[in-house]
Amino acid sequence: SGLVHIKNPYLDSMEEDVLYHLDLGTKTHNLPAMFGDIKFVCVGGSPNRMRAFAQFMHKELGLMGDGEDLADICAGTDRYAMYRAGPVLSISHGMGIPSISIMLHELIKLLHHAKCRDVTIIRIGTSGGLGIEAGSVVITDMAVDSSFKPRFEQVVLDDVVVRSTELDKDLAEELLACSKEIPDFRTLIGHTMCTYDFYEGQGRLDGALCSFSSEKKLEYLKRAYDAGVRNIEMESTAFAALCGLCGLKGESSCSRLR
Amino acid sequence: SGLVHIKNPYLDSMEEDVLYHLDLGTKTHNLPAMFGDIKFVCVGGSPNRMRAFAQFMHKELGLMGDGEDLADICAGTDRYAMYRAGPVLSISHGMGIPSISIMLHELIKLLHHAKCRDVTIIRIGTSGGLGIEAGSVVITDMAVDSSFKPRFEQVVLDDVVVRSTELDKDLAEELLACSKEIPDFRTLIGHTMCTYDFYEGQGRLDGALCSFSSEKKLEYLKRAYDAGVRNIEMESTAFAALCGLCGLKGESSCSRLR
Repeated sequence: SGLVHIKNPYLDSMEEDVLYHLDLGTKTHNLPAMFGDIKFVCVGGSPNRMRAFAQFMHKELGLMGDGEDLADICAGTDRYAMYRAGPVLSISHGMGIPSISIMLHELIKLLHHAKCRDVTIIRIGTSGGLGIEAGSVVITDMAVDSSFKPRFEQVVLDDVVVRSTELDKDLAEELLACSKEIPDFRTLIGHTMCTYDFYEGQGRLDGALCSFSSEKKLEYLKRAYDAGVRNIEMESTAFAALCGLCGLKGESSCSRLR
Repeated sequence: SGLVHIKNPYLDSMEEDVLYHLDLGTKTHNLPAMFGDIKFVCVGGSPNRMRAFAQFMHKELGLMGDGEDLADICAGTDRYAMYRAGPVLSISHGMGIPSISIMLHELIKLLHHAKCRDVTIIRIGTSGGLGIEAGSVVITDMAVDSSFKPRFEQVVLDDVVVRSTELDKDLAEELLACSKEIPDFRTLIGHTMCTYDFYEGQGRLDGALCSFSSEKKLEYLKRAYDAGVRNIEMESTAFAALCGLCGLKGESSCSRLR
């Protein structure tokens, strides 16, 4: 049917669903009218960057107006920012798995309540590259954890549930094909490693704490490279697991900054 | 000496330290002049709320001006917001352990570079209460994980390191004593449980995914209550572990919202 799958037996019997961190709700907003025609959702960490992306899409799509005055749909909260340009929704998710998870739970419910169909979701955040040129874009074929395994461990109450982190392979190929139409645009397909920590978790020598040697760091990053990892960030495993379970065609493509 | 302890042998030999997510650095800013007299740091998730807190402190301390136009010290980035009112620094940390960890690594290095002494840090965020009245403030004596254990598991490269999450007991008692001077202000000391997830991790029945019954949820929350947990949030174990290791006198006191 192309609809989003909610896996919660309680949800449809609830009188009202408040999407608290988005400042939206089923009683306060007409979600089908506001979002029913959304076909693409792009997510990234920074609110300013997701605003700039919506403005860029507004121009690319040739929509009316100059796009400079796009309103933040979540203006009533400072947890996340959300903009739309035609059928494209652009939302910030903050940094790290817990932050993106809260946003995705509420976004998925939003798409469900709005009865959206055939939605594609793409994370377009930044990442640290591994053995690739600065400015390259990595299209993720598989999100892996800090042991290079394609899994996401979700704590449900006090049980640990292991979820798959596979992404849509056709979509990855499609994005790669698109990138080839643009000259001088370095794009590759590879694994993306997702960590819980930016400093100690990603082998940085400049945090407040650093207990490993430069050699141990390089040895770890080399093992990651040999396992197929081409970039490192902090959201992809949760993104892949949640989108996969809810039937959203998902992809992650991050540009290398360092 | 009262100084902050950096546990990184590489840091002091670095020519420049860029506190990237705060948009500050040792070459671009005179950190001792800007921050050397800071004695208190208060942190919370929401940037708007941390701005309002700095304005409140500005008035409470009787500082010059009306405090309405406090400038965001991290205005060059939208990752975090930072304000100061006299010796008090007020900083946002976003949601979840990874997000607060990035901020704390850079804050601790900032306090180190600025040669601050005897700094007290308090998290003043929101939380979900457990068996307590709405509006109550829980002063955390111990941050515990989803198994009710006072520990924080930090992944360092691909090793898991277990860290203590004890907080400053004298500071907790001092805060409790202060609260008693204010009439009708419900405050208690208890354990704070820190989870990686807001919906499945905290027993909520209204996420996009919910695989447990209402009974199983209540049974888990009852076990948490019996273990001494009085509120649930998403940052305290990492906060306690990092502050403890770096010699910052730390406390977490969260008000109950639900």
